[in-house]
Amino acid sequence: FNIVVLPGDGIGPEVAAAGVEALKAIGDVYGHTFNFEEKLIGGIAIDERNDPYPADTDAACLAADAVLLGAVGGPKWDLQPKRPEQGLLAVRKSLGLFANLRPMDVAPSQAFRSPLKEDIVSGADMLIVRELTGGLYFGKQTRTETQATDECLYTVAEVERVARVAFEAARKRRNKVTSVDKANVIETSRLWRETIIKLHKAEYSDVELEHALVDSMAMHLVTRPKSFDVIVTENMFGDILSDLASVLPGSIGLLGSASLGATGKGLYEPIHGSAPDIAGKDLANPIGTLKSVSMLLRFSLNLGKEADALDAAIEAVIAAGQLTKDLGGTLPGSEVTKAIVAQIRA
Amino acid sequence: FNIVVLPGDGIGPEVAAAGVEALKAIGDVYGHTFNFEEKLIGGIAIDERNDPYPADTDAACLAADAVLLGAVGGPKWDLQPKRPEQGLLAVRKSLGLFANLRPMDVAPSQAFRSPLKEDIVSGADMLIVRELTGGLYFGKQTRTETQATDECLYTVAEVERVARVAFEAARKRRNKVTSVDKANVIETSRLWRETIIKLHKAEYSDVELEHALVDSMAMHLVTRPKSFDVIVTENMFGDILSDLASVLPGSIGLLGSASLGATGKGLYEPIHGSAPDIAGKDLANPIGTLKSVSMLLRFSLNLGKEADALDAAIEAVIAAGQLTKDLGGTLPGSEVTKAIVAQIRA
Ligand SMILES: CC(C)[C@H](C(=O)O)[C@@H](O)C(=O)O
Ligand SMILES: CC(C)[C@H](C(=O)O)[C@@H](O)C(=O)O
Repeated sequence: FNIVVLPGDGIGPEVAAAGVEALKAIGDVYGHTFNFEEKLIGGIAIDERNDPYPADTDAACLAADAVLLGAVGGPKWDLQPKRPEQGLLAVRKSLGLFANLRPMDVAPSQAFRSPLKEDIVSGADMLIVRELTGGLYFGKQTRTETQATDECLYTVAEVERVARVAFEAARKRRNKVTSVDKANVIETSRLWRETIIKLHKAEYSDVELEHALVDSMAMHLVTRPKSFDVIVTENMFGDILSDLASVLPGSIGLLGSASLGATGKGLYEPIHGSAPDIAGKDLANPIGTLKSVSMLLRFSLNLGKEADALDAAIEAVIAAGQLTKDLGGTLPGSEVTKAIVAQIRA
Repeated sequence: FNIVVLPGDGIGPEVAAAGVEALKAIGDVYGHTFNFEEKLIGGIAIDERNDPYPADTDAACLAADAVLLGAVGGPKWDLQPKRPEQGLLAVRKSLGLFANLRPMDVAPSQAFRSPLKEDIVSGADMLIVRELTGGLYFGKQTRTETQATDECLYTVAEVERVARVAFEAARKRRNKVTSVDKANVIETSRLWRETIIKLHKAEYSDVELEHALVDSMAMHLVTRPKSFDVIVTENMFGDILSDLASVLPGSIGLLGSASLGATGKGLYEPIHGSAPDIAGKDLANPIGTLKSVSMLLRFSLNLGKEADALDAAIEAVIAAGQLTKDLGGTLPGSEVTKAIVAQIRA
């Protein structure tokens, strides 16, 4: 299997290295060979190549079976015309990664970490499916001295393909989809809702479907997170709501994400950012990346058993209290990785 | 003083009536005369006039000193081409109400109601200033069989005028403004941030200013709500974030809002919706509306002392445990109103 590794900026290289170690252990135990190719993206790519997404990075990603990303960005590049984030938007677009999957769950034993009261959040278990290559983030932009515009555009085909991902995922979970829009005000949301309703009727009427307005949904995620199974929404709403949901477990260091296209290929990254303040100090929690690696095994390489083994190793190490500082522990990130790798090899 | 009352739909008429009673009591005690004129808006205006914002409603609002609104909307009108929400958008636009003020605070004695853990939320006290007549909600829309678009447009002048409201408000509070955008991706947000920075340098450098990305801000509101004083943002981000913030006190029945234009005139409404499920049962909490009335007195009629008296009456009744069901009490809404009116007259 050919894996492209994009370490990126800040703590990106540390956590990406943890992902590579876990994959090597999985390879040894289960008899797979992973070829790793490291490439530049984000701020470091701007520094070294003056381009947040160099052509050779793109070529390597297009040829790979899966891409593992650390993180991009940092204050260093904040005032530059070329921005690290452009690298991330570019790889999503180039690989056609239209569906961003963000699972979030709060095990009862971990609910004490949540900013929410335990009875509200304990046992919450949702999957947010965010449309990732359309809408305002990829629309036409104009700018003059006195005004600016962004265009939000969605096609029926774009809505259908991401909705399918959500309905299919729901069938493997608790069979419920909540579609989020602002259909009482904007036109792309009316198209969104109508398309979802039609597709549901035609092909997924066995799945329970409900609709929520984005403003109400922000409330519901805090007041009754346990009522949701799969949530599907457009790019910007998904950006906001998935980040909101990600704080419910009490540490964003625990969560991974997968960005998928029409083929099996995907981009996998922890949901935390580059955290320049703790970079190079071996404080970063590797678990978000290892959760992403488990999705990489499952979705891009079709190695479900191996993914289960990695998930179990992560759970065992959390249960044993072998934790980084963000979770109240004292271990350096590299020690947590070692503990998880030891579990895999055991 | 000429006050237009727009009861609207669902529980709107009940809570608007509470507002009128409170104003009458204030008038009696402090020697002011309020003239009330009731007009149609929203679903009921569609039913009776086939228009969510009839011309005579508009004329009355334009001539009034202030407008008190109950709520609009309901499932009854969900599948119609004419929608109650259009009435709300229309009155905002017609009166030029570009700044929506949403105060939110969690008194330590009330923190037990919050979905957040008490130590995180107790003492939080913020004012969200939402731009209300620009952006995606008022942009050009297109629609074909296969696609839809919405345009998001902001001018420098639109950003400046709402930013001024935020900076001025901060000077009367804890002197800090957090401006929220998505400047790492969209053009209108870059215009937004640049304009705020310029205005701050030129006229408000005494106020502390910070910037946050909308996705991060959704997280911060849940993990550290106490760090914020005044938050200013564009229309859609403000819609989402102000609703998110509104659940922190544990009942959206407690919060009011003011929508202000360039003149003193304003529209005042509770932040809860029309709640058709409890309409007509005298269960609705009047406090959100009475908090809105207190802002009406303060901002549009310049009656600060009277506003303070109303706020104090509300606090006294909450402290005495004279509460509606949403707050764990047993009183009908009308009894809570009576108790508050009695406090004013005492
Ligand atoms: C960095 C930025 C472009 C990106 C986004 O908003 O898509 C990030 O916030 C994310 O959610 O992956
Ligand atoms: C009803 C709707 C148009 C409105 C909005 O989104 O502006 C509402 O959600 C609000 O926040 O006042």
